[in-house]
Amino acid sequence: MNFKVTQIAEWIGATVEGDPSVEIDHFSSIEKGKIRGLSFLANPKYENHLYTTAASAIIISQSLQLKQKVNAVLLRVKDPYASFTVLLTLYEKMIRPSYTGISDQAFIHAEAKVDSSCYIAFGSYISKGAHIEAGVEIHPHVFIGEGVHIEKGSIVYAGAKIYDRSLLGKEVIVQPNAVVGSDGFGFAPDSEGVYSKIPQLGNVIVKDKVEIGACCTIDRATFGSTIIEEGVKLDNHVHVAHNATIGAHSAIAALTAIGGSTKIGKRALIGGQVGIIGHLVIGDDVKVQAQSGIARNVSDQEKLQGTPALEYMNFNKSYVLFKHLGKLEERVKELEKHLKLGNL
Amino acid sequence: MNFKVTQIAEWIGATVEGDPSVEIDHFSSIEKGKIRGLSFLANPKYENHLYTTAASAIIISQSLQLKQKVNAVLLRVKDPYASFTVLLTLYEKMIRPSYTGISDQAFIHAEAKVDSSCYIAFGSYISKGAHIEAGVEIHPHVFIGEGVHIEKGSIVYAGAKIYDRSLLGKEVIVQPNAVVGSDGFGFAPDSEGVYSKIPQLGNVIVKDKVEIGACCTIDRATFGSTIIEEGVKLDNHVHVAHNATIGAHSAIAALTAIGGSTKIGKRALIGGQVGIIGHLVIGDDVKVQAQSGIARNVSDQEKLQGTPALEYMNFNKSYVLFKHLGKLEERVKELEKHLKLGNL
Amino acid sequence: MNFKVTQIAEWIGATVEGDPSVEIDHFSSIEKGKIRGLSFLANPKYENHLYTTAASAIIISQSLQLKQKVNAVLLRVKDPYASFTVLLTLYEKMIRPSYTGISDQAFIHAEAKVDSSCYIAFGSYISKGAHIEAGVEIHPHVFIGEGVHIEKGSIVYAGAKIYDRSLLGKEVIVQPNAVVGSDGFGFAPDSEGVYSKIPQLGNVIVKDKVEIGACCTIDRATFGSTIIEEGVKLDNHVHVAHNATIGAHSAIAALTAIGGSTKIGKRALIGGQVGIIGHLVIGDDVKVQAQSGIARNVSDQEKLQGTPALEYMNFNKSYVLFKHLGKLEERVKELEKHLKLGNL
Repeated sequence: MNFKVTQIAEWIGATVEGDPSVEIDHFSSIEKGKIRGLSFLANPKYENHLYTTAASAIIISQSLQLKQKVNAVLLRVKDPYASFTVLLTLYEKMIRPSYTGISDQAFIHAEAKVDSSCYIAFGSYISKGAHIEAGVEIHPHVFIGEGVHIEKGSIVYAGAKIYDRSLLGKEVIVQPNAVVGSDGFGFAPDSEGVYSKIPQLGNVIVKDKVEIGACCTIDRATFGSTIIEEGVKLDNHVHVAHNATIGAHSAIAALTAIGGSTKIGKRALIGGQVGIIGHLVIGDDVKVQAQSGIARNVSDQEKLQGTPALEYMNFNKSYVLFKHLGKLEERVKELEKHLKLGNL
Repeated sequence: MNFKVTQIAEWIGATVEGDPSVEIDHFSSIEKGKIRGLSFLANPKYENHLYTTAASAIIISQSLQLKQKVNAVLLRVKDPYASFTVLLTLYEKMIRPSYTGISDQAFIHAEAKVDSSCYIAFGSYISKGAHIEAGVEIHPHVFIGEGVHIEKGSIVYAGAKIYDRSLLGKEVIVQPNAVVGSDGFGFAPDSEGVYSKIPQLGNVIVKDKVEIGACCTIDRATFGSTIIEEGVKLDNHVHVAHNATIGAHSAIAALTAIGGSTKIGKRALIGGQVGIIGHLVIGDDVKVQAQSGIARNVSDQEKLQGTPALEYMNFNKSYVLFKHLGKLEERVKELEKHLKLGNL
Repeated sequence: MNFKVTQIAEWIGATVEGDPSVEIDHFSSIEKGKIRGLSFLANPKYENHLYTTAASAIIISQSLQLKQKVNAVLLRVKDPYASFTVLLTLYEKMIRPSYTGISDQAFIHAEAKVDSSCYIAFGSYISKGAHIEAGVEIHPHVFIGEGVHIEKGSIVYAGAKIYDRSLLGKEVIVQPNAVVGSDGFGFAPDSEGVYSKIPQLGNVIVKDKVEIGACCTIDRATFGSTIIEEGVKLDNHVHVAHNATIGAHSAIAALTAIGGSTKIGKRALIGGQVGIIGHLVIGDDVKVQAQSGIARNVSDQEKLQGTPALEYMNFNKSYVLFKHLGKLEERVKELEKHLKLGNL
């Protein structure tokens, strides 16, 4: 990339303070700014970097009053973070490979319905009865099972497998090697402990604007549906078991497991490596710290930590004492000594 | 689906109480029953749902004495859960896609041996010396390495990779994007901490009726074999390191890691996100709670929780006190105050 | 395999004590030694096995003085472990399938540059602008994105996906179904909690002699690079978030997650299922016990355990008391009883 700041100012409607002929060739954070770099300042907490950064241009707020001299060219906008994102999006369109055309080395079943505007890559597989709407991208080595329906503008990256009867909404993104619609983990033990497989007859429903991370696995329901509601964002290696529901606009970090039939409310914020057992009801706006284990129902807005998870403040109060449990034990020993009790 | 209850009664040998012309078009759990739905009641704990469910038909025990009027048609059988499973299995056969034929767009090495009754999908790869027995399904984008032997009736779903010399028994199921036979994690550090790779020359042996979840990884042995015994069920993202053995009829939940050379006994029940370090011996009929970390040998029938894991009851006793550690500290403070000790 | 001990002695420059015509047909550890097996003794701790093993031949140190009679043929060398590794490496070369040739059923973009000495398998995909140097192996179902550069002698196993602009150094090994260069997990919430995707414009740089385990995911940077330094070894299912850096010669066990922008120093030794949150600085030669959670910066040579992690000795001191928290509470109760305090 190589742009003049005047060009950038035009794209984001900024007013320029400083030399308009300065050129930039990369983005960076303000604290790592280097010559020919473009940064932004959104959080006042980082204002000190504004006066020391080596970045050549910085997007800042219209209203920010400078406390010292700034060497960089300033691009003033209403919302620096939003403008920076607009710029990233514009730049992404310039550099993203163009994914178009239907490869004659893909397998497309005669009874599948694929819009002519789709990208269907070399080596991908579209089964009988699948329906792929306009503008969808199916990358190499993707498998689309029987009766799968993918709505407009969704992207399924290389190696992802979408098994039978799954429904993907609009503008869904499935990262590489994720699996949607695999068999739920359902087995019935006999009296000897030998398991029989319980058929998994349901499906997975993924609503609009969901993003599913690389190597995630979302199992289909025993019957009915496993549901990922609108706008949910799953990081890599997240596991969602059969019949679970993830509420709209929830974000779940990497390597977290959601148990079977558990229903999570809206806007959950769940850290990495969290485990939530099956058959629970989790309210709206819940926050779970990384590596916690949830084994009970959770009310709206609870904030939890620990295994099994406690209310966040309670966990931390106990954990501070755990850190110094030796001292507490010494205090007890001192008391015993004083009273000539204990093992003394 | 759309069936009359008389048809269903015939399949499972049930006697019908109520209108035999009622039709059902889906399965559901009894508590979520809706019109035209078929449910079952196996656990007496849920009997109250029987009198309130909106399901149109319910499979119940021959011996159940009704306490109230039931609106649904009743199908009486000896073992409701078993009959329901029979029905699911029948229905699965109706809806499961038919996987047949050997694609001319698969790669099959001239020196591989593939039974003519197999399904070998478009885009799959069968290496030299592989032996694929009757009725095996090899789905799209599956890789079968050199010398791999897969016995009758096994299914390898899309994108799974079975590397060199692995042996899969009869009726094994490998879910999408699982990896069997990848290199074990073996490196020898020199005096500077620089690692050299230790060749991994062994293989993986997967016995009959094992199920391996989506995105599982089972590494091959350094020498000898990593062994998954008969009937083991692995949920998604389970990791089994080189030279480990998982005992027959064990079930392991998602995201659990089994360390190298560890030997687990029969019928283990291991929760999700559990870690078991290498070189341990774990007895038969062991139960491990989710997210526990095992760092010592375990006797038959132990039940463990925590990291490092304690006996289940001991963990819980300590954890109850941990929850209220603040109160314990206050009690100590009170004692100190009384004796004018401590920081007062 | 089937070798005379004289042949083996020649390969590793050993002097033979015992019958030179003995034949061996497998490797094993000394404690599991069987007839016709070859083992080694490197660690004096295991010397007792030398006198009881059924192995037919054992590699031992030149300087070891026997305390009892040994039945096996002895091969004496300077460094038994090193010689055994040499042997494994030799044997691996004999049994490893030969991966050669460029398949005409691979997709290679006209503007990709692929050295004629490479192995490019059936069903693999090489995008525009990719550059694959001499001796690289690209196995079946591998995807190589636009502008990816892979240096000499690297191996990318089946199903791995290397997305756009990633750089892989020399002799890198990527195990099956790993993902390098997927989108970082970056989203900006609006005031309603609805997320917008932040474009991920950077790349992943993997330096020489790195090994990436099966089903690992390494996300590309938002801008700049996610960096895996020279000689790093990642076990299976490791997740490295955008903009993180893993220091040279670090080893990370399975199912560990490294948060965004975190920088880990050299020679870290990180257990399985560890979580390290984003934006941290971790020093050199750090050791982290399995399942720990790191939520603060870490100095050189720290050894940590717990969630949140404590210094290793402190964690263990506290955990010993946690195990017996019931006893501590009883001692407090006893004191209260003595002073007639508490709930008595």
